[in-house]
Amino acid sequence: MYVVGIDLGGTFFKIGLVEVENGKIVKKIEEKTLVEEGGEKVVERMAKTVQKLAKGYDILGVGIGSPGSIDHDRGIVRFSPNFPNWTDFELGSLLSRFLNKPVYVENDANAFVLGEKWFGAGRGYNHIVGITLGTGVGGGVISHGMLITGKDGIGAELGHVIIEPNGPQCGCGNYGCLEAFASATAIKRMALEGKKKFPESVIFNSENIDGKAVFDAAKAGDLLGQIIVERLVNALATGISNFIHIFNPEVVVIGGGISRAGEILFEPLKKKVEHLVMPTFKGTYSIFQSPLVEEAGILGAASVILQHTSYE
Amino acid sequence: MYVVGIDLGGTFFKIGLVEVENGKIVKKIEEKTLVEEGGEKVVERMAKTVQKLAKGYDILGVGIGSPGSIDHDRGIVRFSPNFPNWTDFELGSLLSRFLNKPVYVENDANAFVLGEKWFGAGRGYNHIVGITLGTGVGGGVISHGMLITGKDGIGAELGHVIIEPNGPQCGCGNYGCLEAFASATAIKRMALEGKKKFPESVIFNSENIDGKAVFDAAKAGDLLGQIIVERLVNALATGISNFIHIFNPEVVVIGGGISRAGEILFEPLKKKVEHLVMPTFKGTYSIFQSPLVEEAGILGAASVILQHTSYE
Repeated sequence: MYVVGIDLGGTFFKIGLVEVENGKIVKKIEEKTLVEEGGEKVVERMAKTVQKLAKGYDILGVGIGSPGSIDHDRGIVRFSPNFPNWTDFELGSLLSRFLNKPVYVENDANAFVLGEKWFGAGRGYNHIVGITLGTGVGGGVISHGMLITGKDGIGAELGHVIIEPNGPQCGCGNYGCLEAFASATAIKRMALEGKKKFPESVIFNSENIDGKAVFDAAKAGDLLGQIIVERLVNALATGISNFIHIFNPEVVVIGGGISRAGEILFEPLKKKVEHLVMPTFKGTYSIFQSPLVEEAGILGAASVILQHTSYE
Repeated sequence: MYVVGIDLGGTFFKIGLVEVENGKIVKKIEEKTLVEEGGEKVVERMAKTVQKLAKGYDILGVGIGSPGSIDHDRGIVRFSPNFPNWTDFELGSLLSRFLNKPVYVENDANAFVLGEKWFGAGRGYNHIVGITLGTGVGGGVISHGMLITGKDGIGAELGHVIIEPNGPQCGCGNYGCLEAFASATAIKRMALEGKKKFPESVIFNSENIDGKAVFDAAKAGDLLGQIIVERLVNALATGISNFIHIFNPEVVVIGGGISRAGEILFEPLKKKVEHLVMPTFKGTYSIFQSPLVEEAGILGAASVILQHTSYE
């Protein structure tokens, strides 16, 4: 069985033809989104690319993972900072009309956790908390086998759970959200703030002051690097411990660029979460780095159509 | 249609015969639990009381709300600080054998939110966050119509979500849990801590240093009373805002003894939550004081059987 997954971003979209049985991306194409062309044009190009990619294959349908606030029942992008002019844009039905195939749209962080359930660390599980550490911090939750999206489909905003009421300001305006500690944006902010006290940190020898520079510095024993990683780990562990107490999940899976830091992040993180959870919860969960890495976007999007179809 | 609800506590159990159509408690009996008699004896007395109460009525079954960790699939009290010797006690099947009726058992905070869904502020809603402010802080969540209990049925521990990592120590050993700010225990602790600086607070004229004394003092303009209420409100608002971002609920309903403080609690609480939620969430939720008051325990327990029956 084949499905198509579209990982839609503000700059590029990636379309992949996925063989469901083995989770393999048979073929994929990446194109510029060119939002400025207008939604209809973008969807038309998307449709052509899907047709090219799926030629000779009988596809079940198309799943889309999109940033922003998504009305997943109607396949509508309500609004997204990435697509400034797409207010209440009927992405799903438009693409469906071009392709004459079912199309389902989901928020990208929700698509991420679906991808983990269908193809990644969440296979075989019904209670999965997914967290993406990228420019922002996204969340997706599967509880009792069901995607938890809430009344309007805007729930699972795990990045905007407040971890420290007097913490640094978040992009959302609040103080001390998880995103204000555990996103690429937060890492960069903490590095720049640290320059005053640690101007000789090796972080500032890097071309880019980013997650990689900070984690590499920490690995090399750089004090500022270690301080930043510790702050990130403490906040993320508090968040994860909260989510474990709320959802009692089998699996917590962490993806996004920052998750690729690997052991320097996951080893202290697991230890700290273990310290924080109540005795009843010990041994009930596992924390994983997303195994899907570069393919998480397309496989997550492909899972959107699979999840919808398995419901019907 | 009639069901029986048993609100089981460490000191008393309350049994009520409930008319489902109008949520009326037709009759009720309160008895001492007498845990020291042993589980079997307690269940036998319970059964006799149910039979007496339900004589002449055809009851659908019995629901029990019990403190502690409950295996609701099997009706087992895994353990509870209130029943020190009831480890893996088969409460449900034992009572069911005595009565020859279906019996379902649920954690009391989960029963609370079910009660709100069937008979209280959550009627007609599918996304409800319930919080009980008593000796401790309990939580129950209905999302997409389903009680969220997690893999082992121990989820929705909303009282142990960390609100301030450097906050006061909670009974669970962690620091800064919601329970460490918003429970009767926390209020008493904050009052006693405040005595050093505010020895003349009217709180200390009360016979009992409890929630009522503190809220009454705050209403009368007492500074320590107001400081404690403000700390409680800030922590609770942060927690509720987090739960709104996670569950995107229609309704947040707050019960338990502390909730009866009324407007002095709810007015600043609603304002603070409104400040904290992200723009997308504004206007999506309502916050209510539980309308069930004294009857919340029995009606919640009665809802446990209704929820199970409506699933089947």
